[in-house]
Amino acid sequence: MTATIPAGVETARDLVGPAIATAVDRLSPEVRMVAAYHLGLTDADGRPETRTAGKALRPALAVLSARAAGAAPERGVPAAAAVEFVHNFSLLHDDIMDGDTERRHRPTAWTVYGIGAAILAGDALLMLGQDLLLEGPAPQGLWASRCLAAAVQRLIAGQGSDLAFERRDDVTLEECKQMAGDKTAALMACACSIGAIYVGAPAALAMGLAGFGAHVGLAFQLTDDMLGIWGAPEVTGKPVMSDLRTRKKSLPVVAALTSGTEAGRELGELLAKPEALTEDELADGARLIEAAGGRDWVEAEADSALASAEKCLAETEMPDDVRAEFANIAEFITARQW
Amino acid sequence: MTATIPAGVETARDLVGPAIATAVDRLSPEVRMVAAYHLGLTDADGRPETRTAGKALRPALAVLSARAAGAAPERGVPAAAAVEFVHNFSLLHDDIMDGDTERRHRPTAWTVYGIGAAILAGDALLMLGQDLLLEGPAPQGLWASRCLAAAVQRLIAGQGSDLAFERRDDVTLEECKQMAGDKTAALMACACSIGAIYVGAPAALAMGLAGFGAHVGLAFQLTDDMLGIWGAPEVTGKPVMSDLRTRKKSLPVVAALTSGTEAGRELGELLAKPEALTEDELADGARLIEAAGGRDWVEAEADSALASAEKCLAETEMPDDVRAEFANIAEFITARQW
Repeated sequence: MTATIPAGVETARDLVGPAIATAVDRLSPEVRMVAAYHLGLTDADGRPETRTAGKALRPALAVLSARAAGAAPERGVPAAAAVEFVHNFSLLHDDIMDGDTERRHRPTAWTVYGIGAAILAGDALLMLGQDLLLEGPAPQGLWASRCLAAAVQRLIAGQGSDLAFERRDDVTLEECKQMAGDKTAALMACACSIGAIYVGAPAALAMGLAGFGAHVGLAFQLTDDMLGIWGAPEVTGKPVMSDLRTRKKSLPVVAALTSGTEAGRELGELLAKPEALTEDELADGARLIEAAGGRDWVEAEADSALASAEKCLAETEMPDDVRAEFANIAEFITARQW
Repeated sequence: MTATIPAGVETARDLVGPAIATAVDRLSPEVRMVAAYHLGLTDADGRPETRTAGKALRPALAVLSARAAGAAPERGVPAAAAVEFVHNFSLLHDDIMDGDTERRHRPTAWTVYGIGAAILAGDALLMLGQDLLLEGPAPQGLWASRCLAAAVQRLIAGQGSDLAFERRDDVTLEECKQMAGDKTAALMACACSIGAIYVGAPAALAMGLAGFGAHVGLAFQLTDDMLGIWGAPEVTGKPVMSDLRTRKKSLPVVAALTSGTEAGRELGELLAKPEALTEDELADGARLIEAAGGRDWVEAEADSALASAEKCLAETEMPDDVRAEFANIAEFITARQW
């Protein structure tokens, strides 16, 4: 497995990047400043940045999705930008909710501009995504917009569960998987199908691609949850063991807690402590998750999700080079960096 | 002038209320609870409430707007619910940004459920509004959705300016009027025209109604800014002199600060004090605004906006009873309760 960003992702970024920058220019000055900083277009003072922000996987998937329908990559650009805006809307708001202070190796927007400004920038990007689709060709622009709106509602439902889980100590593994499906897989399914929808592809293609994306999205969340515990900070851009530190009910944690093992029981006691966890306790926590089988379970689930994704891909009609690029991205997304 | 809610508003509430409740039921349980509380459908524990939440002026305007185009009021309901959802999205988020703890005589949602849950509930209502329109008849549903999306972007721009103005002491009256136009008048213009757009009215009608709504919206914001200083808490549902307390750059304040009078200069000194203002200082502030002519200016502007609204209304073709109801609501909105 590889951790190198597939070439198609870079190409898509070059294609979609200018459309993103142009659309952000429509925002009012105060809101634009925050959005541009968050998107990595500018630094905190509004000066142009050359650094790349985020992996831009979703736009790459959306462009591929248009190509899967036989369209030129350019035709998928509005859909790709829309998905990226919605993804960044959710990051802006989630960072506030989760109290995260660092993202992509930079201070999060709310720590730089305040909570109010970051909420607004998220709101603006959410609507900007819809704007781009609705001003596109009818009726496909409308279909794409409804597809994205449905994904957004699932994203919100997933984040709502995530917040609620923090206050509960009886979260089941089933609930946790549902949450990951809502929070991550729904938008990934949308990214993989929206380009095709936007260029007017037949329903069978859109549905096959959405199925692929849903499985890839689940694999992605499982991987992300692993990185939240065992990932290197220089790779994740987040503090070491960030998810354990905040006692997030991530998939490996819940798998361990509900394992019925002695290690799982001890993990429950550790996480129930009212005080902040020390570095030693965090290391203990990570070991207990492994001992309770949480890590093995997540790896097996990720492999299984990836296999399902590959099956969807194989069964859906599309040009071979496009299928190969989808497979590359799926593999990249779940490459293990811990 | 009267402060009694016009009969048409009550009728519209009875019509749109069930559609709002049904749409909210689509949200996931955690998000639904917060949204339903905010909308006054339930109390903080999720038990059904019989109290009415808010004046529901915008849905009434949207229903009237459909009737202006000769359609049955029922046909305007999805558009009316969509506008009300967007209005409540902005209230949920603004209350967080402004640190407001009370709305409609109840604790604000973020104080009950936390900032994260209130952000999410706002996000969900914003998308729900778009959902309702996009699943409506094509192409009018799409037109209505774009009309609403444009209003949302202006709403966000206005709130962005509002936040930025808090950190500036050189805000001009022109900037302040622009902000009010974005923050309040844009959505009111949308409420007055979206029903007509949604039922496929000719552009001339939609534009006449939007013009009426923009003027009414400005008059409404001017009135609201007066209430923020001279309004009785039992009428406004907010603490007495709430806007002065938070040193908001509201229209009467900026009119006074930029008046070039001695009272305006003294007001500037008062508002520049680093400490919280005492009750005596707040009373002084209100007097200084009056002495500097801020109150007179706002009253004159509100009268002028209302006159422009009436002119738009008179010049736009619609059934006489609909025109009379629009006029009633405009008068109600700007009735002076201070």
